[in-house]
Amino acid sequence: MTDHRAPRYDKRTETIMRATLDLAREVGYAKLSIEAVAARAGVGKHTIYRRWPSKGLLFHDSLLTLNEPVLDYPDTGDIMADLRRQIHGTVDLLGTPPWGPLYQALVGEAQHDPAVAASLNERFIRPQEEKTLARLKAAQEQGQISPDFDLDLAMAILSGPLYFRFLITQEPVTHDYIDRILQALFDGMEPRP
Amino acid sequence: MTDHRAPRYDKRTETIMRATLDLAREVGYAKLSIEAVAARAGVGKHTIYRRWPSKGLLFHDSLLTLNEPVLDYPDTGDIMADLRRQIHGTVDLLGTPPWGPLYQALVGEAQHDPAVAASLNERFIRPQEEKTLARLKAAQEQGQISPDFDLDLAMAILSGPLYFRFLITQEPVTHDYIDRILQALFDGMEPRP
Repeated sequence: MTDHRAPRYDKRTETIMRATLDLAREVGYAKLSIEAVAARAGVGKHTIYRRWPSKGLLFHDSLLTLNEPVLDYPDTGDIMADLRRQIHGTVDLLGTPPWGPLYQALVGEAQHDPAVAASLNERFIRPQEEKTLARLKAAQEQGQISPDFDLDLAMAILSGPLYFRFLITQEPVTHDYIDRILQALFDGMEPRP
Repeated sequence: MTDHRAPRYDKRTETIMRATLDLAREVGYAKLSIEAVAARAGVGKHTIYRRWPSKGLLFHDSLLTLNEPVLDYPDTGDIMADLRRQIHGTVDLLGTPPWGPLYQALVGEAQHDPAVAASLNERFIRPQEEKTLARLKAAQEQGQISPDFDLDLAMAILSGPLYFRFLITQEPVTHDYIDRILQALFDGMEPRP
């Protein structure tokens, strides 16, 4: 997948985001500090705080901006293939150390801290939902998704089983698991006539 | 739903479990301590530790034992009605203060502490999965669930969208939401011929 967008960040902003991810990888999210990021990036703390009011927002922004292209949906005209490709890309990212544990730590914090939960939704879940809906809407118009399927539920139905495995049973989320889940969601639980 | 089982716990065990839940309700899970439970129940700490090696296990056990009947599946012969009733019961429990925030805190801890994650799965998720599979298997044998539906995925597919809302978007999980999710899962995303 090529990223055809023009770069949206100046060099200093990108340096700060790279320093954030490098440090998170080295010390983990819990021990990440804005002071350390500032030192690593060679900028003052106030430069960081001007753009990002908290460590959580800085981390989200860095994680998602630098990994954004992988989260886009391709549109080859085959909705099942495109969903597979996008979701495989997402779980490959989570399976690449240290992203899985870092994302898990963030979701864990979101259970205690409403600000982290709000940032998670604003910065990741809602944009992801918009992309998912746009791709599914096109597929629905092409007759590949049932006209009765309620697109408002799409994000929960497609992502829920992955989060269940990632957060609750904590087993590895494999490509095979994704493929089986997608097939089951497409077929439905009820017998077909 | 009546609980037809014989009581499995002696009076002292039940007193400890009730004290645990009362205290959790009063001070929250984070501030719950085995010392305080022992004092409230009028027993020694060692009495508690003999049965429950950690606060997490004591809390799980108390929460689930005293609320177990609501998590059973009825079998009226109508799988959709029975799933609705069981899942409505579960979310009603989570919607009754303080269970929702307490359960959310536990899942949050499970993202940082593998022992809590293991206990969550052993004490709650796997028994729940067994009940779900038994009920769905009967329905599959009666032709109410597609013979192609992979029962190994059932727990993730049925629970995932609820956890997604409970943990990620953190919107209220309503009966209406459950009904719409169940309908979408039964129908499937693909157009029916």
